[in-house]
Amino acid sequence: MLVQMVTDATDTQVDRVVAFAEDRGGQVFVAQGAGRVVLAVRGMHAGPDDERRLRALPGVAAVAPTSREYALVSREAGAPRSRVEVAGVPIGPGTVTLIAGPCAVESREQTLAAARMAREAGATILRGGAYKPRTSPYAFQGTGEAGLVILAEARAETGLPVVTEVLRPQDAELVAEYADMLQIGARNMQNFDLLRAVARTGRPVLLKRGMSATIEEWLLAAEYIASAGNLNIVLCERGIRTFEPTTRNTLDISAVPVAQQLSHLPVIVDPSHAGGRRDLVLPLTRAAVAVGADGVIVDLHPAPAEARCDGAQALTHPDLDELARAVRDTASAVGRTTVEETSLALSLA
Amino acid sequence: MLVQMVTDATDTQVDRVVAFAEDRGGQVFVAQGAGRVVLAVRGMHAGPDDERRLRALPGVAAVAPTSREYALVSREAGAPRSRVEVAGVPIGPGTVTLIAGPCAVESREQTLAAARMAREAGATILRGGAYKPRTSPYAFQGTGEAGLVILAEARAETGLPVVTEVLRPQDAELVAEYADMLQIGARNMQNFDLLRAVARTGRPVLLKRGMSATIEEWLLAAEYIASAGNLNIVLCERGIRTFEPTTRNTLDISAVPVAQQLSHLPVIVDPSHAGGRRDLVLPLTRAAVAVGADGVIVDLHPAPAEARCDGAQALTHPDLDELARAVRDTASAVGRTTVEETSLALSLA
Amino acid sequence: MLVQMVTDATDTQVDRVVAFAEDRGGQVFVAQGAGRVVLAVRGMHAGPDDERRLRALPGVAAVAPTSREYALVSREAGAPRSRVEVAGVPIGPGTVTLIAGPCAVESREQTLAAARMAREAGATILRGGAYKPRTSPYAFQGTGEAGLVILAEARAETGLPVVTEVLRPQDAELVAEYADMLQIGARNMQNFDLLRAVARTGRPVLLKRGMSATIEEWLLAAEYIASAGNLNIVLCERGIRTFEPTTRNTLDISAVPVAQQLSHLPVIVDPSHAGGRRDLVLPLTRAAVAVGADGVIVDLHPAPAEARCDGAQALTHPDLDELARAVRDTASAVGRTTVEETSLALSLA
Amino acid sequence: MLVQMVTDATDTQVDRVVAFAEDRGGQVFVAQGAGRVVLAVRGMHAGPDDERRLRALPGVAAVAPTSREYALVSREAGAPRSRVEVAGVPIGPGTVTLIAGPCAVESREQTLAAARMAREAGATILRGGAYKPRTSPYAFQGTGEAGLVILAEARAETGLPVVTEVLRPQDAELVAEYADMLQIGARNMQNFDLLRAVARTGRPVLLKRGMSATIEEWLLAAEYIASAGNLNIVLCERGIRTFEPTTRNTLDISAVPVAQQLSHLPVIVDPSHAGGRRDLVLPLTRAAVAVGADGVIVDLHPAPAEARCDGAQALTHPDLDELARAVRDTASAVGRTTVEETSLALSLA
Repeated sequence: MLVQMVTDATDTQVDRVVAFAEDRGGQVFVAQGAGRVVLAVRGMHAGPDDERRLRALPGVAAVAPTSREYALVSREAGAPRSRVEVAGVPIGPGTVTLIAGPCAVESREQTLAAARMAREAGATILRGGAYKPRTSPYAFQGTGEAGLVILAEARAETGLPVVTEVLRPQDAELVAEYADMLQIGARNMQNFDLLRAVARTGRPVLLKRGMSATIEEWLLAAEYIASAGNLNIVLCERGIRTFEPTTRNTLDISAVPVAQQLSHLPVIVDPSHAGGRRDLVLPLTRAAVAVGADGVIVDLHPAPAEARCDGAQALTHPDLDELARAVRDTASAVGRTTVEETSLALSLA
Repeated sequence: MLVQMVTDATDTQVDRVVAFAEDRGGQVFVAQGAGRVVLAVRGMHAGPDDERRLRALPGVAAVAPTSREYALVSREAGAPRSRVEVAGVPIGPGTVTLIAGPCAVESREQTLAAARMAREAGATILRGGAYKPRTSPYAFQGTGEAGLVILAEARAETGLPVVTEVLRPQDAELVAEYADMLQIGARNMQNFDLLRAVARTGRPVLLKRGMSATIEEWLLAAEYIASAGNLNIVLCERGIRTFEPTTRNTLDISAVPVAQQLSHLPVIVDPSHAGGRRDLVLPLTRAAVAVGADGVIVDLHPAPAEARCDGAQALTHPDLDELARAVRDTASAVGRTTVEETSLALSLA
Repeated sequence: MLVQMVTDATDTQVDRVVAFAEDRGGQVFVAQGAGRVVLAVRGMHAGPDDERRLRALPGVAAVAPTSREYALVSREAGAPRSRVEVAGVPIGPGTVTLIAGPCAVESREQTLAAARMAREAGATILRGGAYKPRTSPYAFQGTGEAGLVILAEARAETGLPVVTEVLRPQDAELVAEYADMLQIGARNMQNFDLLRAVARTGRPVLLKRGMSATIEEWLLAAEYIASAGNLNIVLCERGIRTFEPTTRNTLDISAVPVAQQLSHLPVIVDPSHAGGRRDLVLPLTRAAVAVGADGVIVDLHPAPAEARCDGAQALTHPDLDELARAVRDTASAVGRTTVEETSLALSLA
Repeated sequence: MLVQMVTDATDTQVDRVVAFAEDRGGQVFVAQGAGRVVLAVRGMHAGPDDERRLRALPGVAAVAPTSREYALVSREAGAPRSRVEVAGVPIGPGTVTLIAGPCAVESREQTLAAARMAREAGATILRGGAYKPRTSPYAFQGTGEAGLVILAEARAETGLPVVTEVLRPQDAELVAEYADMLQIGARNMQNFDLLRAVARTGRPVLLKRGMSATIEEWLLAAEYIASAGNLNIVLCERGIRTFEPTTRNTLDISAVPVAQQLSHLPVIVDPSHAGGRRDLVLPLTRAAVAVGADGVIVDLHPAPAEARCDGAQALTHPDLDELARAVRDTASAVGRTTVEETSLALSLA
């Protein structure tokens, strides 16, 4: 059973619902974020009048049965689509958010140059990897906390909030001190302990789809985060694995409307990792915005030829300007606006 | 070796190139269509001065070595992208062509109603299946030649040229008498005898990608058509088979720019068969136009609930109007125009 | 509804069942072969007592409702597994049949040498392609009828019945004059007209699974053959298309027991085309026999380095001897025998 | 560069090789286990005579360049196939090891009953999950350390060493106190921190292939373990994700010989999770042993209908006895023996 609280529900009201359900043997998972408070109640032995009484509790907006295992992130209780805010920058319905930055933080100079490129082109969130998951143990594994410090400096200079990947549960708190949004990479979509650790930081989470995850499994991974209390989740489609060799992955463009129909969470697209080719980033970005994605996240590099990872897909400065224009034009064609730079207001102390 | 002739090359000029190559042991494949004449020369024993002499023959525009097995449809000799005309309606760069119609011709009434819907919404080519390839031998197999007669009547009434599928080589000539463009379905992409038979009718060919064909295999299938003499080929991406169960197929949106980069042929998208769901046709159409597709082909039905095949994906009249608007708006965002109805001019007697 | 006739049912008895069903508006498909006569009745308006009366008709062994669309090839009416005979050589339960031969008939010498290799190693059916489906229009397309003549000579010399592929419906009769079993290749699994044409020759049919066909689609393709009257069908698993690049296809070994459970038809495996590598043919053959396949079909060549197609997977003479021993040893471990050479008896005039 | 030490190389000898390489700017990764000591040297600036001098160092058996990124687990320096010992039970060439046990440790009674079933049937290693990775946050997540205690009791009673899965790096040490072999599940194949943590316990590691991992990525995951010092790795093929719906995954049977050719590590098969169906476990086990797998790992349950996870694939007592016989018979057909119970000798204090 899913309980949707009113927008301004108090903790006391939530506690009362929890107590009501637990008294009847139920187990309750409370998730907050994206402007809502939702409770998933499981295994409650409800008497004939209990659902009516639950509905009448103060602060309760709606009560609905759930048929989906991913109750908290589903749209089953008539949930409208969510807007997640990243240090004041919205991701969600009505807007298209451009996230850009280097695949990996390699050095202070490279990262600051990349951040300025992102800012100038009109991106409103900066991406950048300090901890890098690499297929080979011998590949560059990222710069770690030193990279986080650089990202924080880039954020201070440009005013762009930062999203960066977390690889280990024990790093979640540390990364949350530096970054505004924490990313779960495709390889870790079902690293359940990591999902919970990241959720508990309270920071918004960018959840990439696993490379062979069904949409249902992706939403269940989001449910792990939600059931640990955190509803500030943004889904990211980044391509799935198929037999076609001309692209690194096959961008599953249909996954955007399908996930938006099944879940209230925002859905963005990563055209850089999907195609793995610079020349495809622009057309795939257009497709993503046109299909209704709530944003795109792209790789850029001041000097792609020198990039320590994924240089083949990194955009240059002129590429990024053209891409930002394409985002604006396509967003307009589908009745959306892009997030204005002027709307930026870092909410971190 | 690839020989590109000038646009107004005469038969005599072509014959002279063929003779030149055959004299040196070469085998020559001449392909015409989409405003060009191209010759693939294979196995020629060329002397040191022969390439220069070939280049100097009257009517020869360019000579280039080929590294791709799909030489005639490749862009290797610097070929610009092609425009294919279907009874005067262009498919190719600069425009976005909307093809619409019923999955199957079921009856005169249903087909005429569907054709009027297509025409009114602004589609400029009518699709409709008289011969239906069905997974089960017991499923409705189409109305055959009776269906062709109905399609011809719909064409006469609406002025829309017709594209319809051919299943058997021996039917190609008959279908070509009734239809303006012949379709090769996904299941038949490697039915090589059918490819040749359809090519030889001289009609433009709509070549759907096989459900697990690589892009290279798709272009080689097009090369079968081209090497049989016919370059009036339009490629159609219609989704590939993957593990994801929420959609019937996974629309490989990246295949559009990739195929356009490798081949000069126009590429359109079939969002109806890709998703298999009515609610996905509109967003996938937007994605297709935004990514740069030269057109879309969609299923519609005056009464989808009564459709004898694929009713779950057929658009209704209001759906189609909305889709046509979306095509126009998205085309405009990517700097293209849609084909105007007024441009229609049936070239068939 | 599925009607299983007794083994020695007469034509008159079959006709009476057909008349009974047609009188009640039913459409009847009669399939014969593999020692059985089965009728699929569709759309019969059966009165309350009609099923009992149908069951009581002379020659009727069993009547069962069907839930599967592939009724004739299913095991629904309690059908035991079938044995198909190819000119006297059995394929089916209890035995393991080794089919071997060159991928393509290239010349008389090569084919006769290959046939002798097959015979000496203990293979009991000779494979060899006269018509070759090739991805590229410029690749070697087979020797056609000249190849059929060579195959017939190889058959006369070695006593081995011949299986060869048919690519076009109009060739089915001709191929059936020369060969004992007709093969439908993976690319043509859903070339429905070809399925019907091959079925009508009355020859046993080897039906390869399409490279991305589900098992259900494969059985429905078999149902096309059966519903055209011919139950002498052998299914062949030859690998499906996946993301894994070290093998040409991924042998779906589970498909063997799954298909045998859903259908009464024999199932064999093609380890040569599945892996596309000579070094994998032996272990995959062992796996195939161990999993319960009713036979294997392998490529061989007297001189693989000179092969005009698929030389990389062709076995040499010593390879084949080792493989035949492995077939015998593994068959014995799973309680089966291999077909003895001495059992060969060409039944063709 | 790969340096293979002699079997009885001393620490001093290894240290001297390390010093030699580091003096020349190389980075050295030392891996031990499976009866060998191997060093991967990367980035060494070797003078003209250095390779000869390296080869002449005491304890060095062979020096070879490496072309594979997964150097330590590759067969490049002419490495024979490895035998890994799990508390005295061998897994590797010559033998076939049967690992059996419940998917999850649910209770003391269920686990002890399952362990006795395993022992009686002739299995020589006990599997059982205390920590369960589940797609849904609301599914049974395992019994944790309480489950480890139960597994230890089952081990004490039956004498069977235990393999169990680790989900979190911080649990690796604890699990290693109770279990003889640590399992990395398919979802965690690229959880690199977990790979390193498990490696550092020194326990043998069972590394399952990710559900859409290529064989190369699987070997690189093994290289993570090896480069953290531990060569006692057993690879486990458990099916990959494809479009085919009749089985939970598609067992990639070819992956066994391919991985054995590329790597010296033993490769076993999990037919239970591959098919997800009880009726397929027996035929897939036969296929696995026949193809050359070094063992199989199967699910069993004293009462499958009551199982808290994967009951549909769990074997019952009679199933397991039949399976063990099939393992013996098939092993014999491919010239291998199964590991005798009498060889069991728990090596843990």
